[in-house]
Amino acid sequence: LNEDVRELETELPRQYPNEIPHNEKLLSLKYESLDYDNSENQLFLEEERRINHAAFRTVEIKRWVICAMIGILTGLVACFIDIVVENLAGLKYRVVKDNIDKFTEKGGLSFSLLLWATLNASVVMVGSVIVAFIECPSAAAHGIPAALAMCPVSFAVLQTLVIKVCGVILSVVGGLAVGKEGPMIHSGAVIAAGISQGRSTSLKRDFKIFEYFRRDTEKRDFVSAGAAAGVSAAFGAPVGGVLFSLEEGASFWNQFLTWRIFFASMISTFTLNSVLSVYHGNAWDLSSPGLINFGRFDNEKMGYTIQEIPIFIFMGVVGKRQGSHLCSLSRYIHRPCLQVIEAMLVAAVTAAVGFVMIYCSRDCQPIQGSTVTYPLQLFCADGEYNSMATAFFNTPEKSVVNLFHDPPGSYNPMTLGMFTLMYFFLACWTYGLTVSAGVFIPSLLIGAAWGRLFGISLSYLTKGSIWADPGKYALMGAAAQLGGIVRMTLSLTVIMMEATGNVTYGFPIMLVLMTAKIVGDYFVEGLYDMHIQLQSVPFLHWEAPVTSHSLTAREVMSTPVTCLRRIERVGTVVDILSDTSSNHNGFPVVESNPDATQVAGLRGLILRSQLIVLLKHKVFVERANLSLVQRRLKLKDFRDAYPRFPPIQSIHVSQDERECMIDLSEFMNPSPYTVPQEASLPRVFKLFRALGLRHLVVVDNRNEVVGMVTRKDLARYRLGKEGLEELSLAQT
Amino acid sequence: LNEDVRELETELPRQYPNEIPHNEKLLSLKYESLDYDNSENQLFLEEERRINHAAFRTVEIKRWVICAMIGILTGLVACFIDIVVENLAGLKYRVVKDNIDKFTEKGGLSFSLLLWATLNASVVMVGSVIVAFIECPSAAAHGIPAALAMCPVSFAVLQTLVIKVCGVILSVVGGLAVGKEGPMIHSGAVIAAGISQGRSTSLKRDFKIFEYFRRDTEKRDFVSAGAAAGVSAAFGAPVGGVLFSLEEGASFWNQFLTWRIFFASMISTFTLNSVLSVYHGNAWDLSSPGLINFGRFDNEKMGYTIQEIPIFIFMGVVGKRQGSHLCSLSRYIHRPCLQVIEAMLVAAVTAAVGFVMIYCSRDCQPIQGSTVTYPLQLFCADGEYNSMATAFFNTPEKSVVNLFHDPPGSYNPMTLGMFTLMYFFLACWTYGLTVSAGVFIPSLLIGAAWGRLFGISLSYLTKGSIWADPGKYALMGAAAQLGGIVRMTLSLTVIMMEATGNVTYGFPIMLVLMTAKIVGDYFVEGLYDMHIQLQSVPFLHWEAPVTSHSLTAREVMSTPVTCLRRIERVGTVVDILSDTSSNHNGFPVVESNPDATQVAGLRGLILRSQLIVLLKHKVFVERANLSLVQRRLKLKDFRDAYPRFPPIQSIHVSQDERECMIDLSEFMNPSPYTVPQEASLPRVFKLFRALGLRHLVVVDNRNEVVGMVTRKDLARYRLGKEGLEELSLAQT
Repeated sequence: LNEDVRELETELPRQYPNEIPHNEKLLSLKYESLDYDNSENQLFLEEERRINHAAFRTVEIKRWVICAMIGILTGLVACFIDIVVENLAGLKYRVVKDNIDKFTEKGGLSFSLLLWATLNASVVMVGSVIVAFIECPSAAAHGIPAALAMCPVSFAVLQTLVIKVCGVILSVVGGLAVGKEGPMIHSGAVIAAGISQGRSTSLKRDFKIFEYFRRDTEKRDFVSAGAAAGVSAAFGAPVGGVLFSLEEGASFWNQFLTWRIFFASMISTFTLNSVLSVYHGNAWDLSSPGLINFGRFDNEKMGYTIQEIPIFIFMGVVGKRQGSHLCSLSRYIHRPCLQVIEAMLVAAVTAAVGFVMIYCSRDCQPIQGSTVTYPLQLFCADGEYNSMATAFFNTPEKSVVNLFHDPPGSYNPMTLGMFTLMYFFLACWTYGLTVSAGVFIPSLLIGAAWGRLFGISLSYLTKGSIWADPGKYALMGAAAQLGGIVRMTLSLTVIMMEATGNVTYGFPIMLVLMTAKIVGDYFVEGLYDMHIQLQSVPFLHWEAPVTSHSLTAREVMSTPVTCLRRIERVGTVVDILSDTSSNHNGFPVVESNPDATQVAGLRGLILRSQLIVLLKHKVFVERANLSLVQRRLKLKDFRDAYPRFPPIQSIHVSQDERECMIDLSEFMNPSPYTVPQEASLPRVFKLFRALGLRHLVVVDNRNEVVGMVTRKDLARYRLGKEGLEELSLAQT
Repeated sequence: LNEDVRELETELPRQYPNEIPHNEKLLSLKYESLDYDNSENQLFLEEERRINHAAFRTVEIKRWVICAMIGILTGLVACFIDIVVENLAGLKYRVVKDNIDKFTEKGGLSFSLLLWATLNASVVMVGSVIVAFIECPSAAAHGIPAALAMCPVSFAVLQTLVIKVCGVILSVVGGLAVGKEGPMIHSGAVIAAGISQGRSTSLKRDFKIFEYFRRDTEKRDFVSAGAAAGVSAAFGAPVGGVLFSLEEGASFWNQFLTWRIFFASMISTFTLNSVLSVYHGNAWDLSSPGLINFGRFDNEKMGYTIQEIPIFIFMGVVGKRQGSHLCSLSRYIHRPCLQVIEAMLVAAVTAAVGFVMIYCSRDCQPIQGSTVTYPLQLFCADGEYNSMATAFFNTPEKSVVNLFHDPPGSYNPMTLGMFTLMYFFLACWTYGLTVSAGVFIPSLLIGAAWGRLFGISLSYLTKGSIWADPGKYALMGAAAQLGGIVRMTLSLTVIMMEATGNVTYGFPIMLVLMTAKIVGDYFVEGLYDMHIQLQSVPFLHWEAPVTSHSLTAREVMSTPVTCLRRIERVGTVVDILSDTSSNHNGFPVVESNPDATQVAGLRGLILRSQLIVLLKHKVFVERANLSLVQRRLKLKDFRDAYPRFPPIQSIHVSQDERECMIDLSEFMNPSPYTVPQEASLPRVFKLFRALGLRHLVVVDNRNEVVGMVTRKDLARYRLGKEGLEELSLAQT
């Protein structure tokens, strides 16, 4: 999903040119730009000290309740999507099928084609209009970062969710080569972000609950739970969901947090399972833990042998090569109207391609004993159906499961080959359209198709000596294709394992995904570097580049640093904040009047957002009356402003006020993390990674500020082909 | 497993009174006492800077190779244990069965009892002798910490492993109420610790490979992988293994590390699966991913309904109450002879109890269609077998699976009740015997028995309206009982989920385990506190106590701190190291000659083990010749000494040498982590947890050392019933 994310991020800055970067642009840079480090200033400590044990227990219970709510709501949203898609798509297929059946005999199938294409195009049009014109580009994107970055000013959680859900439904019903699973991750995260804050901008209501959670550290945790719940509902993989969250967002392992995430995941899949079971009539059957179920892979029927493992690994290589082609296509259309037209065009072409392929196919299969939902007879004999039609004339989820589980011989190799080729090009074209959609299912489908083809060919070539169920090759192909496109491979393995319900299949799946990853790292690393340079995303890796021990904090840090004095002139503060060339988010605070006996050492760290709130509330005193106590602020004032702090330009400070003094002592964080200048880059890196820092102050032996390290400073250094490389990031 | 660990630790100190604590006693205090923080001194940096990119790639490949080896070896060891146990136990049961069959007719069953008891006792005797007399008490313990703490001086990895494996086999074959799964975790960790260091003390060989990995940070990672491989082989749960490792050992999430752990887990279960499949004759059937397999729980046959969930939760409460009783029994026998005799007694009593219960039971079941391996007819009619005998006359693993999957009506409630009661007391007695054994399987067995009983009673009480397969109640009972005894609940849930192979069962299992945990936290917290106070284990929780914001580093830290000067007198160093009252492991280094222009600020941190190596190699110069360059040491000198640094008493320093000077500059870590005195306890805690620190230097505004925080200082503060409590830890 990283590619999607990066693609998205190029578009984001233009959305809020007047906003300060703290909550908007930087939030889009994965989780990592959230500030995980609580600013432990006096206000915060006073509040924490006032709260007693019982109150903390209440907070803890609230956390669990929120996680349960996240799970239930995510599950319900998934149910809603599933049921609506099933009905609408069913309706569409029935209409088209009846039409085709009617015209097959008396000729005039071109009318059927037209009907199909029109239906698709009109449905997709609505979906595309929603996404393109309601100016919320992030609804078209996938993954957690997008959830946090979404349309910050004019849009709110509820609206984003509605757009997202409608968009997905319309894209899938419109027959595009997309799935409804990817967006579930986003939906879960959005739901979590909404619930945990206890207020809604859309409804203009503040429910006055969960105020304690209005800060980055807490919000991040709930969004993790939401994303996990989304994965869990999409794939019926609660453990996979937890691992996905940890991979994407977690900095350090926290038992209680992981428990809550797991709880939300479990509730989500359980809710989905219960509701869908009731909907399908067999209550408490509990057989649909996720939106897509791969069906059971039994050892007896579909076991694999150790000789097949090299073949699987080879499939991993193939998958990766293909996957990277898919990703490398870019889009250049930015005007909403054109975007909508393009989406409609793709929808119509998808229908046309499907129709032509069904029309040309002569692959007939007996209808007896097959599980096809909408069997299309076309030119087949009575009692037979067109095999190609099952692939196109179905939601992609069902096609995937069919490819996995249909008995050997269900598909003609020619059919599979053509289908793979066409669907691949359709998916390439669809990928990046301005519609709400996931890349998961198309990848699985393409992979399953060529995997099955591969299995069949293998058995031809070896004259049946390696013949087993081609379904397992379909599974491996799907894994390989998916591994070629998305990068989060550990959780992916677990998700695939949980979706197949068979532990023994975990080993080959892991090998395939690892191969895809290794091949990817070796061949297409350059592509990523390019992306990063272009988009200046300070994406931190998991570990510092191995050869970076030669660098120290001194070389890495930005210097000189803009410091504030503990008691500072208001004018200076305003000027520093207004300086667009530096645009820092955190400022070290030093002692006001260093004299001979006192070193001008570091005293604390204050954030841009805090300064803005101080200025907004006019928390300063006249220079002449320094002895007067300045106005007291409460933590609530900061929370109410969270997360949409106004830009400095919107705060009016008069000339008189500029001469006032502001005392930062009780607002700054008095114990920021620091490193000495001699610390090596890996050491600094570890501190950033483990604590989720945004700013790290570099001090000398006398505790005087000499520099500041930010994420961007660290992300600059990467391991290239010839060793350590320093990227030149664009100024943002 | 924490209880086991704590129990173990009381015994450890007596093993190495003359050793310095760095590697021995402290290593026993869970992982956490390993030093995760690389000492980035000049030697280290020089080495790292010399290594180029290609060399790092080699190191990375070595890591993967080691993980693969860990997986394969752990899998093979598990196979070995399984096959040997199966054969020996089979032999024993056949002998006893034949004997009983013989004497049933002609009378004299007391001879059979004698035979059975003697067989058990003699087998257990051997096992107990190995464990008790070869003075390696940790072989009797379970879990990862034990693996690191094991017999450090005279014993080495290979020997521990052999003792461990033989011990497990003999205990299980001897019919004790123990399982072979728990020790697998330990075995995996031992294997990992052995392989990753590339040398063997037992074989007195240094293979000169993997020298790069001879330090705490690297070793910890491999031991994590080993433990995960062990869990994976034991339960066929690779994901559960990974989570177990993360829960027990990880400080912060590292993608690459997690991948390697997962890889080792997968390889391990795959190896076990392949070898056992071949052994059982149906190669590539791959149906035994773990030593214990719960068998498949199908939704169709054994679905649960939402009304049953409150019942499951109630079972969680019951399980916790029972479990804590099991744990609260302590042992007071410390002489090896008596320990062996006690073990033999328990073995004989186990046989006797089993025999009497089989003898008294009149619960006959038709042999037709049952899957009993050793059906005992005794006084039953022809074509029937004694149902009680199946429970006792079987390895516990098979009994568990039988309880889960035997059709309704296979067991008489009376039989189950008696069995639960007797086995519970046997397990209580067995728990803590000086034998190598796990507590997992007995818990599962007890839980499954009372769970099944519960299910049957429920159906009687409700006159059949709640009647489903009692197997699912057996599963929930097993989960509840296990949750009552061990604490690592997240990985436990995943392990149980993977072992049942059914995602939908995850939800009730999670609820049961969570209930057990909540009940446990509420009622038996006191027990744990007591343990900690008694044993002075600085066990850090996942988060700082919630109400601890009122404490700052100033209140928590130890002060005054013993500091060393950068150029220090050898005599001073020796005296400080010899001072048994302080016994610190890390010393801040300050500037040698502070004058008016220079603050005596912190310059670095040096470890006890480093000082010892310096003294051993006589790295110092005469005071008169300070300009002379002192002897150069290489990183290799430190690695060779790792992990068994000699005690200070063993290093002879002459009176002349005491007057020499030692320059610490290039050996100390020049950039230790520091906090200002104002930092709150949660902040300090987070730093410790996230970075895996052992020492944190507290500095004032001028970077002068004012105190030092260690793990013990943090572990002192706990959340009691009335808020924050400060425990008085025993001096160690």
